[in-house]
Amino acid sequence: MTIDGRLAELATYGATAGGIDRALFTAAEHEARSTFACWAAEAGLVVSQDRAGNVFARLRGRRELPAVQCGSHLDTVKDGGAYDGAYGVVGGLEALIRIASSGTLPQRPIEVVAWAGEEGSRFPLGCLGSSVYAGLNAYDEVAALVDDDGETFASALHGPHGLLAGLDVRDDFPVPAAYVELHVEQGPVLEHEGAHLGVVTAIAGQRRLSVVVEGVAGHAGTLPMGGRADALCAASELVLAVERAALEAGDAVATVGRMLIAPNQTNIVPGVVRFRVDARSVDDARVAAIERALRERAGDVAQARGVRIAIETLEVRDAVPMEPRMRELVRRACGERDPRALEIASGAGHDAMCIARIAPAAMIFVPSAGGRSHVGDEHTAPADLELGVDALAAVLTAAAERDW
Amino acid sequence: MTIDGRLAELATYGATAGGIDRALFTAAEHEARSTFACWAAEAGLVVSQDRAGNVFARLRGRRELPAVQCGSHLDTVKDGGAYDGAYGVVGGLEALIRIASSGTLPQRPIEVVAWAGEEGSRFPLGCLGSSVYAGLNAYDEVAALVDDDGETFASALHGPHGLLAGLDVRDDFPVPAAYVELHVEQGPVLEHEGAHLGVVTAIAGQRRLSVVVEGVAGHAGTLPMGGRADALCAASELVLAVERAALEAGDAVATVGRMLIAPNQTNIVPGVVRFRVDARSVDDARVAAIERALRERAGDVAQARGVRIAIETLEVRDAVPMEPRMRELVRRACGERDPRALEIASGAGHDAMCIARIAPAAMIFVPSAGGRSHVGDEHTAPADLELGVDALAAVLTAAAERDW
Repeated sequence: MTIDGRLAELATYGATAGGIDRALFTAAEHEARSTFACWAAEAGLVVSQDRAGNVFARLRGRRELPAVQCGSHLDTVKDGGAYDGAYGVVGGLEALIRIASSGTLPQRPIEVVAWAGEEGSRFPLGCLGSSVYAGLNAYDEVAALVDDDGETFASALHGPHGLLAGLDVRDDFPVPAAYVELHVEQGPVLEHEGAHLGVVTAIAGQRRLSVVVEGVAGHAGTLPMGGRADALCAASELVLAVERAALEAGDAVATVGRMLIAPNQTNIVPGVVRFRVDARSVDDARVAAIERALRERAGDVAQARGVRIAIETLEVRDAVPMEPRMRELVRRACGERDPRALEIASGAGHDAMCIARIAPAAMIFVPSAGGRSHVGDEHTAPADLELGVDALAAVLTAAAERDW
Repeated sequence: MTIDGRLAELATYGATAGGIDRALFTAAEHEARSTFACWAAEAGLVVSQDRAGNVFARLRGRRELPAVQCGSHLDTVKDGGAYDGAYGVVGGLEALIRIASSGTLPQRPIEVVAWAGEEGSRFPLGCLGSSVYAGLNAYDEVAALVDDDGETFASALHGPHGLLAGLDVRDDFPVPAAYVELHVEQGPVLEHEGAHLGVVTAIAGQRRLSVVVEGVAGHAGTLPMGGRADALCAASELVLAVERAALEAGDAVATVGRMLIAPNQTNIVPGVVRFRVDARSVDDARVAAIERALRERAGDVAQARGVRIAIETLEVRDAVPMEPRMRELVRRACGERDPRALEIASGAGHDAMCIARIAPAAMIFVPSAGGRSHVGDEHTAPADLELGVDALAAVLTAAAERDW
């Protein structure tokens, strides 16, 4: 079965008019997970799962050493695409099959992991499975997380679409020797540069801010311009300030993606505007500078316009550099297969972010057509999928032979 | 019964947690209308209604001449207040009672009218009753208007909360000799200037524009700043351009009150932003200048940011100056009662706008506390309500004695 064929089959699980809906522990996600387990078993790999809902397929090694891992996730955002996550799982499976078929067992065991719930697709925690695995979130706290319908993680885990039937459940979270994740770029850079492989340098740090602008609502016809405290005009200045701050910081992005206006009626001067800021960079200082610039500008705008502006820092996630030795293995594997292979930062978060906390970790990117991501028509050319798997197999093989 | 007492009773019809909901031809609005008819009949006035849903209470005159009219409306916006509209109806009723109690019949009949559906509260047409009455909208077209639930005006008119039972339905729309409307300012100007009465100079002209900004949506973490066509950043520039254009035009207001962002998610660069512009001035040229300035700026922004911007002019309503002779009667009546009485433009639309097309028309304003309007806690001091009615009675008396 080709990589493309496997991805196409997985894409039927949770298919909607607009893409794929495969939230953790739903029927669709359970089907995808169990299909992966079947494929792995058919390929002669040893399949297991753990109490976080992660599924492992292992190629045994010549020695009983900590494994080299690869992997990604099978859940999707709402109306997501066929590649984000699934490619790293299917590609890892394919890499293991190729390594196994070479006839020589690797020194270390090699595992491909389907991490549970990377997208925060059901419970309010991104990278759920890898985060538990790396010990970043206590198991009991995660077990108590509640979805939109009030069901806990623990309940869903033991429900009909939770753990796979007929498979032992591992209790421990053994630290791997090394980790490498294959993923689509989710951005336009590789395509734009004509590169087919990306050597990830770091996963960007991120801050999320919540901004509330309180002005005074009023009749759009009767309130003179001079007497206004228009919350949307103030917010508009801040949206532009966020953009400017990111441009000035350089090598950073900052976005106001979500904004709610009240009362949001044509003939009423906006009284309250709430919006979110998402700022990212592989250089944490740049992200901090963007927040600082916004807060400074907010002070000026509040004074000039007579509005109240409250800024809350919702989340600060530091950048995660890829481990130098693993990154060098990736650089070599990619460079040999694509002379244009590019060093690139990951703006999006990945399971590698968590595993990097317990083991040397790196990532390989392949291009995303048009940079499209988290949409039904995300696409990567089959030849690029193939190249990525080939590079992954090379990295896994090399990593399995060395000491860590 | 005091004016305040009558307003308080009407405010119970359609009372909600946030204010008053009294859309045309609902149970609440029907109760308010029928209460007005009862009060008028008790006061010895001749009550009638017409096929647009307008209700008339008439004090007969010494001669069979066209009547002098006053009036306003009994419907409210959602979560509206107790004064907007209702004050002009209750105040008109009170003025007629006082004129009647003077013992001398006026030369001309004097009517107070409760115009149907001024707020566009149920059918998609503001000033519905006065617009039909003035022949600005063909009756058959209005009869065919459909509400949000698919019911036509004609059907609702003949439904349980339409026409008042036991009252003849007039077929004609007789042109009055003159018209004067008493209304709350709905803005902060009178209060700010310490005036208790306002002599309305004109009702502002208005343009409503629809703006659609089409950029390109993308992942907030992976789309570099340089490659973005962020629809919200572009829209923010236009919001500020609208504000600047109004300030530069002078004696004008312009507002972006409603804005919708798609997909409106924290981690996605906005792809499409839609918003409405509401621009008003008593000088139509200034409103046109605001639209021109916005269109010019939109051209620049579209080019600089690589977005598409479509601007549609939804509505153009010319300013309506108050008729000089009627305005002089109002000026005199207000000046005698309040040395600070102020000449003031009306930023909001009123039934007087329509009746001005068929008869000499003018308006009297009283202050709105804090300029608050279209909210549950709009308020006008009882002494100001009283003063307004007194001025109205003087204008009606004078207008009824003269030729037009």
